[in-house]
Amino acid sequence: MNNASIYAIIMAGGVGTRLWPRSREASPKQLLHIMGEGTMIQNTVARLQPLIPPEQMMIVTNASQIDGFREQIPAIPEENLIAEPFGRNTAPCIGLAATTLLQRDPNAVMVVLPADHWIENVREFQNRIRLACEIAEEKRGLVTLGITPTRPETGYGYIQWSERKTGVEEYFDKSVRVVRTFAEKPDLPTAHRFLQSGDFLWNSGMFIWRADVILENFQQHLPDLHEQICTISDAQGQTNYSAVLEKTYKQMTPISIDYGVMEKAKNVYVLECEFGWSDVGSWDETFRLSRKDSEGNALMGDVVTINTNDCFIRSDGRMIAAIGMENVIIIDTPDALLVCKGGESQQVQKVVDYLRRKKISNLL
Amino acid sequence: MNNASIYAIIMAGGVGTRLWPRSREASPKQLLHIMGEGTMIQNTVARLQPLIPPEQMMIVTNASQIDGFREQIPAIPEENLIAEPFGRNTAPCIGLAATTLLQRDPNAVMVVLPADHWIENVREFQNRIRLACEIAEEKRGLVTLGITPTRPETGYGYIQWSERKTGVEEYFDKSVRVVRTFAEKPDLPTAHRFLQSGDFLWNSGMFIWRADVILENFQQHLPDLHEQICTISDAQGQTNYSAVLEKTYKQMTPISIDYGVMEKAKNVYVLECEFGWSDVGSWDETFRLSRKDSEGNALMGDVVTINTNDCFIRSDGRMIAAIGMENVIIIDTPDALLVCKGGESQQVQKVVDYLRRKKISNLL
Repeated sequence: MNNASIYAIIMAGGVGTRLWPRSREASPKQLLHIMGEGTMIQNTVARLQPLIPPEQMMIVTNASQIDGFREQIPAIPEENLIAEPFGRNTAPCIGLAATTLLQRDPNAVMVVLPADHWIENVREFQNRIRLACEIAEEKRGLVTLGITPTRPETGYGYIQWSERKTGVEEYFDKSVRVVRTFAEKPDLPTAHRFLQSGDFLWNSGMFIWRADVILENFQQHLPDLHEQICTISDAQGQTNYSAVLEKTYKQMTPISIDYGVMEKAKNVYVLECEFGWSDVGSWDETFRLSRKDSEGNALMGDVVTINTNDCFIRSDGRMIAAIGMENVIIIDTPDALLVCKGGESQQVQKVVDYLRRKKISNLL
Repeated sequence: MNNASIYAIIMAGGVGTRLWPRSREASPKQLLHIMGEGTMIQNTVARLQPLIPPEQMMIVTNASQIDGFREQIPAIPEENLIAEPFGRNTAPCIGLAATTLLQRDPNAVMVVLPADHWIENVREFQNRIRLACEIAEEKRGLVTLGITPTRPETGYGYIQWSERKTGVEEYFDKSVRVVRTFAEKPDLPTAHRFLQSGDFLWNSGMFIWRADVILENFQQHLPDLHEQICTISDAQGQTNYSAVLEKTYKQMTPISIDYGVMEKAKNVYVLECEFGWSDVGSWDETFRLSRKDSEGNALMGDVVTINTNDCFIRSDGRMIAAIGMENVIIIDTPDALLVCKGGESQQVQKVVDYLRRKKISNLL
């Protein structure tokens, strides 16, 4: 197949409050240097670039973040930065991208993926994307990447595959499957069951399909949303585009692509992937992915430790001295400091909720 | 007796590294707001003021701290701020103060005390000082205040009293004793033994005597130091005073008043005191003295806690969020942060040693 028709749609609307106090509304997770060489978005772009040139990458985000992306990835053309007026979950975002893309290239294949994930084996990731694009192109399939689970994680959604024949047997390498169902984030016993069953994969939130095929599926399974997207599409290039976009988004019901389309569509395939993946969804997870020293610590910046083990400590300029600490996460920023027991970092959300309730907007 | 002849000699030379990162060479513990209403020195002056007017208070410190005292306690006259060129332990400091005082008032009674201690019952403290001054005046005694120990503390020196007759039976209220010996900071088993014995008191570092009497004792027990002090005294008011002071101090052997004089002198009395006392010598001690909330936390400044108990958290402007913490001390400053397990705060010294070794002088 022709690389010229492959486009990346990078969904970058989130604010990543789970990585507070580093992640803020004005400088969300995808614009931060959390793991690896660059910022999350820079790493995402870098691992796609051998497959897709920057001119064929689109970022769908919200208006407040556009400047950050412009600055961090100047290679992506201005017109490929798409601002949603409000977040309406993934289906509207993908619909907007698909209709925009289709006007540009009737044969466009979309690689839809979040801006802020971590992938260990980039080469294997690229191979899987290539295979997914072929299936999307040749079979007009809706393809998603499922990650072989390595632990009973309750923070991810799951995809169950079916033993049914795939209809894409020519690609079959034990890892292309028909999807049976999408499952929400499970509780721990359910997650254990999923892990033991052998037919559940983590839902990575990455999707590959032709733009025309996904829009056909919108028409069939989300007719109201499809109509709203057509309204926006018709206004593209017009002077009242912004007004139409905002008005139409206001009327949209938020819905995820999994629930709105994937659950109902035919020709839905999942590629089982083992390239090492994480949504970097918490400080615990970031710590888990970090390289540790001989005392089990992952230290960044100006940190001195005494009798301290299994700690994740990030200084942001200031010097941090830790004495007698065990399994603690310390994240320092110029105006806010987090000190959190290891394994409890999901409670950061409670701090963010508190700040919202108290309208302490300078720390959000 | 006449209040006019009572002078306070406040020893304020220390840098208080045990309260790092708040306490620094340029802003040492005595100049900081650690406990109570004012800074340590302001609280010390306030609790003496009903007994001794500010014109009769002297502060002996080092040159770098003079400005801080001038600013914080403007009521003390400029000429009462005495700068030592180097720290030479307590005996030279007290000798210098005594000779300075004696030139001013041949009947001076000196109340010598550190600048950075905490006292709970100020009225009782004042009563004890009054009694000590009477004994010092009438009996030409060397009087020290001993604190009834409440735990086997290893961070304090101890004073053992003797059953011998005191010779001051007219003052006897079960609490005026003859000193048998001064003991260094003990190990824990020894501290337990001291506590059980019933005849050991904590050495508060507070002394009361006539200036002429202490100088007589210097002459007898520390003749070299006495001579050096006379050299300095002779130069007082001369143009070369600073040079003489510096040169003489350089030659002095550091020695404590306990070891150099009190151990050897006659007429040494100890007044047993129960007014609630602490040297505020560590963050653990500061926490111990602080008022706790229903979760056992002592929180200062902008602090949010979730599932957090028995923690001492001081913000210095920045917001601190603590999640799942138990028995942890968090001390934040603009350029350095301490996170320390409760009970381990004596290890702060190791951090300070590290900073000295690495010559990171901006954090010292």
